[in-house]
Amino acid sequence: MALASKKKNYGKLALARHKKLRGKLEVISKATLANRDDWSTFYTPGVAAVSLHLAKYPSHAREYTIKRNSVAVVSDGSAVLGLGNIGPFGALPVMEGKCALFHTLAGVEAFPLCIATQETDEIIEVVKNISSTFGGINLEDISAPRCFIVEERLKKELDIPVFHDDQHGTAVVILAGLINALKLTQREIGSIKIVINGAGAAGTAVTKLLLSCGVRDILICDTQGIIYKGRGLGMNRFKEELAELTNPGGIKGGLSEAVKGRDVFIGVSAAGVLKKEMIKAMAKEPVIFALANPVPEIMPSDALDAGAGIVATGRSDFPNQVNNSLAFPGIFRGALDVRAKVINEEMKVAAARTLAGAVSEDRLKRDYIIPKGLDYSVPPLIASAVAKAAIESGAAGIIKDPEKIADRTKKFIYEGELGII
Amino acid sequence: MALASKKKNYGKLALARHKKLRGKLEVISKATLANRDDWSTFYTPGVAAVSLHLAKYPSHAREYTIKRNSVAVVSDGSAVLGLGNIGPFGALPVMEGKCALFHTLAGVEAFPLCIATQETDEIIEVVKNISSTFGGINLEDISAPRCFIVEERLKKELDIPVFHDDQHGTAVVILAGLINALKLTQREIGSIKIVINGAGAAGTAVTKLLLSCGVRDILICDTQGIIYKGRGLGMNRFKEELAELTNPGGIKGGLSEAVKGRDVFIGVSAAGVLKKEMIKAMAKEPVIFALANPVPEIMPSDALDAGAGIVATGRSDFPNQVNNSLAFPGIFRGALDVRAKVINEEMKVAAARTLAGAVSEDRLKRDYIIPKGLDYSVPPLIASAVAKAAIESGAAGIIKDPEKIADRTKKFIYEGELGII
Repeated sequence: MALASKKKNYGKLALARHKKLRGKLEVISKATLANRDDWSTFYTPGVAAVSLHLAKYPSHAREYTIKRNSVAVVSDGSAVLGLGNIGPFGALPVMEGKCALFHTLAGVEAFPLCIATQETDEIIEVVKNISSTFGGINLEDISAPRCFIVEERLKKELDIPVFHDDQHGTAVVILAGLINALKLTQREIGSIKIVINGAGAAGTAVTKLLLSCGVRDILICDTQGIIYKGRGLGMNRFKEELAELTNPGGIKGGLSEAVKGRDVFIGVSAAGVLKKEMIKAMAKEPVIFALANPVPEIMPSDALDAGAGIVATGRSDFPNQVNNSLAFPGIFRGALDVRAKVINEEMKVAAARTLAGAVSEDRLKRDYIIPKGLDYSVPPLIASAVAKAAIESGAAGIIKDPEKIADRTKKFIYEGELGII
Repeated sequence: MALASKKKNYGKLALARHKKLRGKLEVISKATLANRDDWSTFYTPGVAAVSLHLAKYPSHAREYTIKRNSVAVVSDGSAVLGLGNIGPFGALPVMEGKCALFHTLAGVEAFPLCIATQETDEIIEVVKNISSTFGGINLEDISAPRCFIVEERLKKELDIPVFHDDQHGTAVVILAGLINALKLTQREIGSIKIVINGAGAAGTAVTKLLLSCGVRDILICDTQGIIYKGRGLGMNRFKEELAELTNPGGIKGGLSEAVKGRDVFIGVSAAGVLKKEMIKAMAKEPVIFALANPVPEIMPSDALDAGAGIVATGRSDFPNQVNNSLAFPGIFRGALDVRAKVINEEMKVAAARTLAGAVSEDRLKRDYIIPKGLDYSVPPLIASAVAKAAIESGAAGIIKDPEKIADRTKKFIYEGELGII
């Protein structure tokens, strides 16, 4: 009850504060235009030299323009927060908020582009056509399965990182939490059995990231039950792929069958679908990620009652919040700083391990497996680890000292100044 | 010679200063995200209330988001400065410069979008699809005749101002200069004879603006000579329209024939095409706008030698520079402040008259008919006049006191703070 009324107040307060602020972002001129010499260098006639240079060497845009540090936050408004398909105007305040986080947490200059079409091909065309200005593309709140196609095609066609945060940001934070949860419950990643409920953006991405980290036994459920090779109902090419990658035993059935004996439940699905009896049917002291928002798959108190060892949710008012903002600012900071062409699995795993490691051994406990969203010490660590992984995996366009990237990010967060590295 | 070497230095200096600055714009968070309450109002869960509100009332986006004050500066890089088709990366430093001017001169938050396609339909689709985020669209450096189609279609389909600066910004400043030149040479706008050389973006727009102000006799030349009804060579539907609007006498021939007895020459064409003999064939003390850049249609000294009464160019190193930056910042400031749906002829004429009036009677002379580009007193005046004209012509979405718009713009320019009106 206290929670409900608090939430209601946040909504009211949000309307009032947004109306007062009128836009959470500001685009300002960094170039001082105080006299004719300024004008003649930053604008005509001098700027022509820069234009001709970049027409000849487009790859130098990162040295002379905002491309160096700019990310487009792109949404079609089809799956905004837990609100569903509310269109581009509904999406805009969320995307602005995301951009505000990008800047506050990592000095990334993000700009929201809320797209008025929900046709997959048209979204791809728009993003391709505006990509020259940006050093990275952050896709956001685009519904599955279109989000997979949009990301896949853009990754193929662009030479800048394309990152769908609802997929990969979420997957990174879940993996981080899981690493710490396994430590606390003495489990090994290679031998755990996982059930994932939800085969949308987050479910698909976390499956792939976990597999790339050595998890071998995953079951995925959607509204039609467990996904298995040869299932007829409710499949598409992305679920066919999941069927190939998971469920080695070919288990069939609903969620009640799927949870049996599993060590870990990851819910990226809907309110209340995980019952106490299901937790009782899992392995001893199972790890529960109940990430549906605002109402989780099971309330933490019920999960613990039923024997859960550790519970994480998507909510800030419970312990262990899986919060994407722990990941995306540092990931893009690191990627931009080494001019990465992609954000690959190695970079995501590095981000997750670093995020897990950001909870020191002495502070690690069952109700503190993930740093809080407001922990400003996190983005510099992630930026540095992601840059290092980019360099080592060959994704970087330029070599930079990861330590310096961390220092620079820290300097920005605490002093508001993003030095040149 | 001194000029040539000075220009060369601006190019060098521009490369060095751009490289040091690494982007002339910065996108910052206006929302302070210092504690959990901030996060919960500017981001989840509170922001959901704003999203739901805007999904229901999209027209309120101007009250709650950056749409209120944001302009997309859109170019396909097909006609950048005098450099021609140098593509999106070549265009980017110029568009950033434009955005820097927008902010410095009027507090407009402009963001550059350099588009990777030069297909007319694709440009239109891109701009339509990203328009939710913006309160206005400034098209820039798109070659004719595609620029006409892009602007025409976008105007029809969007409910925010779409303004092609190369057309209308230029036309406004020319009209301002012409108003003052006519005063100084004792001519009446209704009885003057004008010749315009160049039927591209600027030539077409200035023709239409002059006609809307009472000019009755215009000849337009392109590379095929004078445009007349029924001409076969080098026509398209835009030139057919010009043929209907101009040349009431059906005069045929080249530029030499066109200039005969004309009071005003407006060149938006190419270096050196206006000869001394042509000026001698014009009316007494003709007014010459030789706007080709960087080398004008005739050098001012030659024009004056040949009997020109007043000469304007596009260059900052000669008197009477026709500089678009005198117009576009104030025009958009005024349009945004009253939530104008379009920038119509009335608003452009108001901008031109105000710009002309910004040169006080006692300072007005033949080598000072237009304020300098660096005159920061101009944008507040234009903003106010444009807002007033928008209100009076029915283009405004909301009524605001034009005086307050001027004060607010002034406050921004001198104190860096854009108050709420």
